[in-house]
Amino acid sequence: MLDYPALAALAEIARRGSFEAAALALGITQPAVSQRIKSLEARVGQILLDRGPPVMPTAAGLRLIAHVDQVRLLEQEIAGAAGADTGAATIRIAVNADSLASWAVAALAAAPGLLDLVIDDQDHAETWLRAGLVSAAITSQSKPIGGCDSHKLGAMRYVACATPDFIARHFADGVTAEALPRAPAITFNSKDDLQNRWVRQQTGRPIALLTHLIPTSEGFAQAVRLGMGWGMNPLLMVRDDLRAGRLRPLVPDAELSVPLSWQIARIMVPAMAPLTRAIRAAARDALDPP
Amino acid sequence: MLDYPALAALAEIARRGSFEAAALALGITQPAVSQRIKSLEARVGQILLDRGPPVMPTAAGLRLIAHVDQVRLLEQEIAGAAGADTGAATIRIAVNADSLASWAVAALAAAPGLLDLVIDDQDHAETWLRAGLVSAAITSQSKPIGGCDSHKLGAMRYVACATPDFIARHFADGVTAEALPRAPAITFNSKDDLQNRWVRQQTGRPIALLTHLIPTSEGFAQAVRLGMGWGMNPLLMVRDDLRAGRLRPLVPDAELSVPLSWQIARIMVPAMAPLTRAIRAAARDALDPP
Repeated sequence: MLDYPALAALAEIARRGSFEAAALALGITQPAVSQRIKSLEARVGQILLDRGPPVMPTAAGLRLIAHVDQVRLLEQEIAGAAGADTGAATIRIAVNADSLASWAVAALAAAPGLLDLVIDDQDHAETWLRAGLVSAAITSQSKPIGGCDSHKLGAMRYVACATPDFIARHFADGVTAEALPRAPAITFNSKDDLQNRWVRQQTGRPIALLTHLIPTSEGFAQAVRLGMGWGMNPLLMVRDDLRAGRLRPLVPDAELSVPLSWQIARIMVPAMAPLTRAIRAAARDALDPP
Repeated sequence: MLDYPALAALAEIARRGSFEAAALALGITQPAVSQRIKSLEARVGQILLDRGPPVMPTAAGLRLIAHVDQVRLLEQEIAGAAGADTGAATIRIAVNADSLASWAVAALAAAPGLLDLVIDDQDHAETWLRAGLVSAAITSQSKPIGGCDSHKLGAMRYVACATPDFIARHFADGVTAEALPRAPAITFNSKDDLQNRWVRQQTGRPIALLTHLIPTSEGFAQAVRLGMGWGMNPLLMVRDDLRAGRLRPLVPDAELSVPLSWQIARIMVPAMAPLTRAIRAAARDALDPP
């Protein structure tokens, strides 16, 4: 068996950002924490923590942390039945930023323990799940990922929009292949392909956009509201702006639907059942039906 | 001199996330893009791109991208004087998430080119600046970083708050050293030390908190509003909640001030002057005086 006190120390260091904070949380001395990590590293034959600063787990370290989280959640299930208290389990979940900014937080509150959220683009959360680094994910990948159960949640609708001023200035002659390369766009990050997908859908061909990179959902929406560019916003986040005329769709009835799924590592399915119910119910209210 | 067409290709790949998108943006073929990167890597003797997927620049790649961005911005200054058009410069800036979520976006719109924002905790943005990976940063480090000009912007005020229900349930006998280890907290990520700092200030000693990790500003605030835990929120983001009584301070008049500075790589100071003016003006309106 693995050395679970050492694994617990590893998880505490990674989440609390220092050996000192982990020692405090575990009620042991800092040299004792260091010793646990050193023996664990010697035993698995890999570096588990980049000592920093800041201290960060390596890929191998992340995998072990995911494992100890899952073990603790399973322990909690037994303990619940046995009336014992085994301490709080932590559940690592990948969520796309737009879901977190719009409909997902309230549902995530149903998690059977403390949340450790990983924010990632909906097209890439599966990487985390596949590598076993998270227990579940809200992802655009609906085909079940190896070792996972998958539930279709529905589709998030995106509107290409901008301020009326921006549209008048950049798209006076319509959203054409001539106008698009000159009109600044907003993109979440280099993984965000939504703007490009919409452009291909509209013009039938790829166009290189001039774009800002603004990697927060609220910052992105705010930049669009300020007229810095056009961008694909979740309808859930800009409905009021559209109603009030502060933002307008670049093209009427040209929304893009991004289907989302809830994927759970199979071993975690029973422990996560209440969370799965909450996520599905919240998605039913907020998203377009699958 | 470095091979600038190759550097431009490197930057396009990193920002657009694929060789294909970079080829489109540069108006050359994909094999030509690959060839440019290969010769550049051979010449500098380092791998510049992790081929992924997703394609991501290495640390060495990031440093070269920062360099070509800065060169292009300097070019743009000369071209502006000469009336020539050298294409859009991209400006990489580190911003702490809470500033971006509250007061900074409108000011950043004054940037002399396209923005490429890096979101990082205010205590760590300096790492990016020091390594030359960004041209400027909003950071909690006020002492000028090597090679940078520093402007004090003022202080962001944080309130430890929670819902009235949460406070009644967890802190009925006050915010004591007995209650704190049992009341779930919200923490942004493992680098976020604000909750711990506040606890030390209140109780005179460190306490290991049970905490969720929710790494977006809006998600963090939302989790506090939903009663999932208590957390340090920027007053700018929760003023309405406090006024309406949806949230309450855990302890009256126990706010924490986080001073922020605007630090700019010295070589970029002239090109960034309009942005510096806009940032300082917005900070004067939103933050407590330095």
